[in-house]
Amino acid sequence: MLHILALFSFLLVSSSHAAVQDFCVADLTAPQGPAGYSRKTPAEVTADDFVYSGLSVPGNTSTLFNAAINTAFVDKFPGLNALGVSMARADIAPGGVIPMHTHPGASEIILIAKGSVTAGLISSDNTVYLKTLKEGDIMVFPQGLLHFQVNIGWTQALLWVSFGSSNPGLQILSNALFSNNLPSELIQKTTFLDDDEVKRLKALLGGSG
Amino acid sequence: MLHILALFSFLLVSSSHAAVQDFCVADLTAPQGPAGYSRKTPAEVTADDFVYSGLSVPGNTSTLFNAAINTAFVDKFPGLNALGVSMARADIAPGGVIPMHTHPGASEIILIAKGSVTAGLISSDNTVYLKTLKEGDIMVFPQGLLHFQVNIGWTQALLWVSFGSSNPGLQILSNALFSNNLPSELIQKTTFLDDDEVKRLKALLGGSG
Amino acid sequence: MLHILALFSFLLVSSSHAAVQDFCVADLTAPQGPAGYSRKTPAEVTADDFVYSGLSVPGNTSTLFNAAINTAFVDKFPGLNALGVSMARADIAPGGVIPMHTHPGASEIILIAKGSVTAGLISSDNTVYLKTLKEGDIMVFPQGLLHFQVNIGWTQALLWVSFGSSNPGLQILSNALFSNNLPSELIQKTTFLDDDEVKRLKALLGGSG
Amino acid sequence: MLHILALFSFLLVSSSHAAVQDFCVADLTAPQGPAGYSRKTPAEVTADDFVYSGLSVPGNTSTLFNAAINTAFVDKFPGLNALGVSMARADIAPGGVIPMHTHPGASEIILIAKGSVTAGLISSDNTVYLKTLKEGDIMVFPQGLLHFQVNIGWTQALLWVSFGSSNPGLQILSNALFSNNLPSELIQKTTFLDDDEVKRLKALLGGSG
Amino acid sequence: MLHILALFSFLLVSSSHAAVQDFCVADLTAPQGPAGYSRKTPAEVTADDFVYSGLSVPGNTSTLFNAAINTAFVDKFPGLNALGVSMARADIAPGGVIPMHTHPGASEIILIAKGSVTAGLISSDNTVYLKTLKEGDIMVFPQGLLHFQVNIGWTQALLWVSFGSSNPGLQILSNALFSNNLPSELIQKTTFLDDDEVKRLKALLGGSG
Amino acid sequence: MLHILALFSFLLVSSSHAAVQDFCVADLTAPQGPAGYSRKTPAEVTADDFVYSGLSVPGNTSTLFNAAINTAFVDKFPGLNALGVSMARADIAPGGVIPMHTHPGASEIILIAKGSVTAGLISSDNTVYLKTLKEGDIMVFPQGLLHFQVNIGWTQALLWVSFGSSNPGLQILSNALFSNNLPSELIQKTTFLDDDEVKRLKALLGGSG
Repeated sequence: MLHILALFSFLLVSSSHAAVQDFCVADLTAPQGPAGYSRKTPAEVTADDFVYSGLSVPGNTSTLFNAAINTAFVDKFPGLNALGVSMARADIAPGGVIPMHTHPGASEIILIAKGSVTAGLISSDNTVYLKTLKEGDIMVFPQGLLHFQVNIGWTQALLWVSFGSSNPGLQILSNALFSNNLPSELIQKTTFLDDDEVKRLKALLGGSG
Repeated sequence: MLHILALFSFLLVSSSHAAVQDFCVADLTAPQGPAGYSRKTPAEVTADDFVYSGLSVPGNTSTLFNAAINTAFVDKFPGLNALGVSMARADIAPGGVIPMHTHPGASEIILIAKGSVTAGLISSDNTVYLKTLKEGDIMVFPQGLLHFQVNIGWTQALLWVSFGSSNPGLQILSNALFSNNLPSELIQKTTFLDDDEVKRLKALLGGSG
Repeated sequence: MLHILALFSFLLVSSSHAAVQDFCVADLTAPQGPAGYSRKTPAEVTADDFVYSGLSVPGNTSTLFNAAINTAFVDKFPGLNALGVSMARADIAPGGVIPMHTHPGASEIILIAKGSVTAGLISSDNTVYLKTLKEGDIMVFPQGLLHFQVNIGWTQALLWVSFGSSNPGLQILSNALFSNNLPSELIQKTTFLDDDEVKRLKALLGGSG
Repeated sequence: MLHILALFSFLLVSSSHAAVQDFCVADLTAPQGPAGYSRKTPAEVTADDFVYSGLSVPGNTSTLFNAAINTAFVDKFPGLNALGVSMARADIAPGGVIPMHTHPGASEIILIAKGSVTAGLISSDNTVYLKTLKEGDIMVFPQGLLHFQVNIGWTQALLWVSFGSSNPGLQILSNALFSNNLPSELIQKTTFLDDDEVKRLKALLGGSG
Repeated sequence: MLHILALFSFLLVSSSHAAVQDFCVADLTAPQGPAGYSRKTPAEVTADDFVYSGLSVPGNTSTLFNAAINTAFVDKFPGLNALGVSMARADIAPGGVIPMHTHPGASEIILIAKGSVTAGLISSDNTVYLKTLKEGDIMVFPQGLLHFQVNIGWTQALLWVSFGSSNPGLQILSNALFSNNLPSELIQKTTFLDDDEVKRLKALLGGSG
Repeated sequence: MLHILALFSFLLVSSSHAAVQDFCVADLTAPQGPAGYSRKTPAEVTADDFVYSGLSVPGNTSTLFNAAINTAFVDKFPGLNALGVSMARADIAPGGVIPMHTHPGASEIILIAKGSVTAGLISSDNTVYLKTLKEGDIMVFPQGLLHFQVNIGWTQALLWVSFGSSNPGLQILSNALFSNNLPSELIQKTTFLDDDEVKRLKALLGGSG
């Protein structure tokens, strides 16, 4: 008798899938608003939506920077949408660097999983905060400030990188200045860099104009 | 001549340390408000404030759960204050578990650094999302929902855990119910658990009443 | 003459309905993003959108818990969309309970409109805060923490419940654990509950596996 | 043996009271920042901090408006600090009104607990949304918009009022204009009200100048 | 050789336009959610989306208020969508006023570009803050509070107005009360205004009822 | 008789100054938390707290950049604290520049009050958005992205600058790289700049090391 009652009343509150908004798995094909992507309906969501395997293999470090960044932001891992977290992995060959960059949308923590790394950040009043990190150390980089990492060891370094946004953004300084058609004269005037140097870096980094 | 000018004018904007709020390194002895701790003055901040080494060694897994969680939240790593990120490491012996729990204040990503783990989360409509994860996989757990991890392999597992808050909180279900003086009768009435079972777990987990 | 002028100029600023975003009445059929539902156009909005009558009658307390919760969240009351408030009513028969639960998305205030209720909450450090409330008392439950209410009087209790979100969520502990297909072995391992007890509760609360 | 182990290890994570920020009970004597008051230390917090009894009795409706508002905002109920919710009760004698007002800091829901009330709100494009409400109805008023309630019945009305902030603010139009020393000429110029009318209302509502 | 490498590797991270969310230029025809409009795809965005020229000419001050407000909110300047800023210009003829009003959604700063202006704001406790401003002065008006500006000079005043939201809203008191069909009796009851005065202002400002 | 009543009851709600939080005027000497400075008590606040005159005179453009930026952020204008808005003025001599910079904490709008300016911003995917602006034009720069302004006219330009935060921050690229002791070798490695160029700019901009 109690069992039969339970069939009808073991739930205190009737709720449909459609009413729940514990999460908001992105439908990458639907309209995207300021707070993130529109969601898949909860009925379409499976456990796979909460898992991402794309960070399991090292990136190819045969780049100009001798390093690779592989991001798991919301565009690759839709389950993160609007949850306020994301990750990346950085592989840095000996002597390689994660070049000077900012994240406009979130603060970041790096964990040194392998290797030895010197990392730095620069505050708005131009103070430099510089540390050499060993395996197991974590370091935080506040939102929007310039920072970088350099592998100072003899082996490839592996960094696990965490962000406080599902879409933190990433603006790499040298690419922002030299990998596009921003006129050399404007670069020169707004950075004090020498014209020859601007042109050398545009050639190196794929820029024009 | 240009050089002399520079001595006086290489900064476009005069700013004092005191005016800058790029970050808010916690002064753990100062008043704490809803958004976090009061800050150390920028002049007191050094690079060490942005680094934490307390996650570099495994925790002691000789616990009831055969697992250890070591957090790097703002109370241990003051440089995180209000930056919207924090981390933890979880070491799980074979057969061990990170028991059923929630984080009231943030979503979480786990990265399986070593081992093989089954993890699950339960949504508000009581749907279970369950996955077995291998090394390099990441999984996200939305804010406030019950979730857990179980080491299903033969070796100790290591998980790097990231949060979208410097103070995400951690409420472990069994400790919340059975490690305090919440009267057994109230537990029984509000959970449907059997009285004997409640008393057995109170004895096991340090509760009274 | 002034009157004629007024025809053209009594409004300092010309504005169309479409430009106004004082509110965002949900179109439940439109895409839903992280911040809530897409809106009906202001021209479609009427006074009825701001009113909901579904809380005016008591819920049926013939449930396992001898209580009923009736929610007025955004899925039932679209006018609340993104306004940061919602309500519910709880009817609790003598001896009935609102069982142990959390709201992942908002804090809650209860007002005891009728009856006598013992309520409690448990913090992250496992401290219990327990109070017996009389008519007219209000009590607050912080976001994401386990809490419960028990009718300790001889008459049916009525609680008006307010939330700081239009979609606070509601995770009832016993249903989350025992009203789905979460494998009994995983429940046992992650909660320390006895296997027989898990199976008894699954049978009682509609679970399987 | 297991029991002895438990004495030392039933908590997976060691945490002190001081580290927990599940809530932030206001210390009304400590510095107040933009997000709210500084907190009492968790060790000082008791269950009483989460409960408030000041709304249990009707207010005195012998006012100009034939109504009384009794608020439970953070300054009276410190446990609400920064939890994003608060309440009030409104008692309205027959023919009385809650006059035209706004809440700069939060949206509001009213529940008609007793009586019959006509309520209205005005949007930014000057559209009026007007409804007559009966017992058990709820109505929402979006943040910052002018609104009012009028008791249209023969008995005293009781409204339970909920807000999506612990400190929503309350600006009553007639008091803002006429209960202070704002020069009559400025009122007249900025509202188009007649000078005699301004002076009559200043006399009625306690203003000068 | 290095050059050839650069062709393939001058970007550390491969990213598509579609993945970037540095900004969210509004598609005014797409669904609008609580956080703002859905975005144009980044590939459609041009420099023109970030620029607006509609504030370059003075408004027509031949209005009842002898003033004009010209807004650059998101509905006119879609590039602002969700960026948390917007502007307006106010032109005020000698003796003209920006009448008593509120912005439900943001605080405001005015800059006196030309002329001499008396401005005031009224707080929730009915305190008046009144200042006479000269060219170059700025004054801030907190979100949701009643405020106004009056040209007290002999020449037309120009104010540049900034807001901390792309959609701050604007509720002008006299239009909210008298430019619609809100019944005169309700206005009278909820504001204490005299019935004749209400009817005079309805006639002046385009209201009915 | 009504008048006598009014003496006691013209306020519907009794409130003290201390209870009001319409604004939070900074006490620059009190503890500063993540959300801003602690406040002066409302009783200490006067109309002067809401006004700032420091932007009324042009800055001295005899700098390396032939430009001056004068900020009205919360450290100079305490009344702005936590209100989500601030301003600055930029004076740019012919040929002068506001050099490449970011604001980590807010988006920005510039208004061209005098002169002719070319302005640009660079997105995370390295796209350049470039426009030449004339008097009366406004342009928005999203939070955290590199941007700059150049006076391309024959007369001094004046820009009014608005921000969506009371403390937006300002990181000028060349000063961040070259006006401190960041080791030249690290600059070179993380930016690809030539060593000679780094040293030239350090000499020019006041850096060492």
